[in-house]
Amino acid sequence: MSEVRIGLLGLGTVGGGVVKLLESRRALLEERAGCRLTLAAVADTDLTRPREGLDLRRLPMTADAARVLDDPSVQIVIELIGGLEPARSFILRALAAGKHVVTANKALLAHHGAELYDEARRRGVTLAFEAAVAGGIPLIRAVKEGLAANRIRSVFGIVNGTSNYILSKMTGEGLDFSTVLKEAQAHGYAEADPTLDVEGLDSAHKLQILVTLAFRTFVDLKDIHTEGITRVGQQDIAYASELGYRIKLLAIAKASDRGGERAEDAGVEVRVHPTMIPAASPMAAVSGVFNAVFITGDAVGDLMFYGRGAGQLPTASAIWSDALEIARRIAHGVPALALELPQAGAAALPLRPMDTIRCCYYLRVMARDRPGVLSRVAGILGDNDISIASVIQKGRAAEEAVPVVMMSHEARERDMRVALAAIDRLPDVAAATTMIRVEGGPA
Amino acid sequence: MSEVRIGLLGLGTVGGGVVKLLESRRALLEERAGCRLTLAAVADTDLTRPREGLDLRRLPMTADAARVLDDPSVQIVIELIGGLEPARSFILRALAAGKHVVTANKALLAHHGAELYDEARRRGVTLAFEAAVAGGIPLIRAVKEGLAANRIRSVFGIVNGTSNYILSKMTGEGLDFSTVLKEAQAHGYAEADPTLDVEGLDSAHKLQILVTLAFRTFVDLKDIHTEGITRVGQQDIAYASELGYRIKLLAIAKASDRGGERAEDAGVEVRVHPTMIPAASPMAAVSGVFNAVFITGDAVGDLMFYGRGAGQLPTASAIWSDALEIARRIAHGVPALALELPQAGAAALPLRPMDTIRCCYYLRVMARDRPGVLSRVAGILGDNDISIASVIQKGRAAEEAVPVVMMSHEARERDMRVALAAIDRLPDVAAATTMIRVEGGPA
Repeated sequence: MSEVRIGLLGLGTVGGGVVKLLESRRALLEERAGCRLTLAAVADTDLTRPREGLDLRRLPMTADAARVLDDPSVQIVIELIGGLEPARSFILRALAAGKHVVTANKALLAHHGAELYDEARRRGVTLAFEAAVAGGIPLIRAVKEGLAANRIRSVFGIVNGTSNYILSKMTGEGLDFSTVLKEAQAHGYAEADPTLDVEGLDSAHKLQILVTLAFRTFVDLKDIHTEGITRVGQQDIAYASELGYRIKLLAIAKASDRGGERAEDAGVEVRVHPTMIPAASPMAAVSGVFNAVFITGDAVGDLMFYGRGAGQLPTASAIWSDALEIARRIAHGVPALALELPQAGAAALPLRPMDTIRCCYYLRVMARDRPGVLSRVAGILGDNDISIASVIQKGRAAEEAVPVVMMSHEARERDMRVALAAIDRLPDVAAATTMIRVEGGPA
Repeated sequence: MSEVRIGLLGLGTVGGGVVKLLESRRALLEERAGCRLTLAAVADTDLTRPREGLDLRRLPMTADAARVLDDPSVQIVIELIGGLEPARSFILRALAAGKHVVTANKALLAHHGAELYDEARRRGVTLAFEAAVAGGIPLIRAVKEGLAANRIRSVFGIVNGTSNYILSKMTGEGLDFSTVLKEAQAHGYAEADPTLDVEGLDSAHKLQILVTLAFRTFVDLKDIHTEGITRVGQQDIAYASELGYRIKLLAIAKASDRGGERAEDAGVEVRVHPTMIPAASPMAAVSGVFNAVFITGDAVGDLMFYGRGAGQLPTASAIWSDALEIARRIAHGVPALALELPQAGAAALPLRPMDTIRCCYYLRVMARDRPGVLSRVAGILGDNDISIASVIQKGRAAEEAVPVVMMSHEARERDMRVALAAIDRLPDVAAATTMIRVEGGPA
């Protein structure tokens, strides 16, 4: 039986899981790989901090990444450092040395994917990243291979477990954002600095990767319209329920028909924001730290993938699915096939500017209850081609502002922004109007 | 650009979809395969029946399967004849001639999979069958590759769209089985002879294939306990709702801990039957012709895959996912890796006899409402180690039988069967007791 030698960069939570799976089921993994699997070196800057369930003295620990990157016997490098540097340099160095690379680093792929994919292609090695999107869910191979005969029409993803946990708790228990965030931090579901998660950036990273695969279109991360969940209020969640909706942080990509009426409607729209979806839709039932990705292909129709998007062993499961496939090819002397990815710049579909998208909108206007306010708000919306589907107005208080909640019919984002600016300039409107986009048809 | 030549056996619904996808998106498929794709021959016994959306005069039609099987230029054979023979002989002949085979034929794989997998391995070619289970859902590659580092704990599948459509309609509209079956036949959701679907056999075929992959255990089809939905009554559906459950036809496989208390609890239990699941569980929301498969792996945790389990284009999408992968390897001169399947007879886990499984049970006893009947039924259950969690008894009629509905705590199948036989011998029990197994914990 031949041997495949693996080097690990980063022994954090996921790295620990990768080692644990190897130690707990070596025979199973080696049978599936068709070769012996040897952990040649484990590089981490911290050689002493105890890792739960691991005996560091029995691992080939090193503080020097070069022991992984410059060892010619290492054939597969698993990168679990995270962040942009030095992860990017390390991966480029590994690829240049003819090593295959497995990574879970979504931020790096979203920022520098084109450069890394190109280098892997040039060197004839594999860069695999099943773990980078939706953790343990085998989504990447599903999109890359399973749906290869489809033109993907749309992707809707709940791909950030932290945000979904917070929104689920706010919905289920009527708590506000900051209370739930603190609790999530105490449970380890949110980082001490939760910005990447709750501001939607992590979701945007994953969406960038999915769009590359599903639409064969490189989108620049800075062109993805990204809003997080920090401004979702408890009262918006309550109104959503009353209207038959749930609020989820969705990563959305949709291809428009190229034969549309207006030229600006052609292309793919790519955006991350809190979204109201019908309470009866399958994604509305995805709660807590779970992830789900809903994909529509023109041949296959609607698909949904559901599972744990993070966590030590689910993510390690995805890392090993890639590593085993590579090891199996090495053991059998079968060369890697180049990643079927579009070259940078070769976009199959143009990116559609955010201004041009169309959807329904939820608005919560905080207005003093004076005669004519509703008619002035409605007038502004009408002047901007936005028609109202329903209005809820509760409570009366001449001096305090009260919420006026409206659902619009489908409207254009550009028109909505103009209208919102005008509404917020009305003297009887007391605070910035809250706007949440609605997807998935009427509740 | 090199060329890969494909032969098609069977131009029925799915075969027509395979041709339509090639005709409607040849450039996309050829780009992903990395070669030209040529339909060398299409064999069907019926050369004249019009196929919607296809111009038969432009297809290389033949009534002689040998034109596909004996043409040395054909590299990939797509078998869509269905049934056992001549499909089995044709596939063996294709494999023996060194051709790769793609099939959607679940009945054939469930009956003769071991023989076919062995022949493919011996000849060094690929036998691919993504389309055989759960139609368009890319489930096979998820289980085979995506979960390779997991010990699978359980598989719960809604894998027969016809049965799920019928049960969904019975639940949603309060109709009885035979009314909904007729309507399903009128809509084309059920065959004129619906036996394979409604008696659970089609689900058993798919479960046999999934168990082979997920548990690396060949199970003989005749050893899979299989019950269909024909005896599910409208009143059972109504009681299920009242108790907080839905009734679904589930294909179930579960591995038991080998370290269990009793030796007979070791192994894998494999069964197909109507099942009550909590109304709030994700699978309860899977309605109509959709399929869903819920898998728990020891590393990855819970996963669910959801999508269209049948239909022309969803199934053709799965066929092409396999064919494109094979064509890509041929075009790049990369040899096939042998199917990672257990050899026939080499079961990783023993099959657990049905008598030894444990679950909760729903019972509907039709009893004349006389003093002491309930106590006699309860006595029989107690004597057989079955304890009752709840009882519903409605209506009173001394002469007519009225339903007494009971939910048991977890009990052993063998004990339940003994108890049921005794209950049905009671003079005041007017009809055979209806028993439905319950999974997924309390509602």
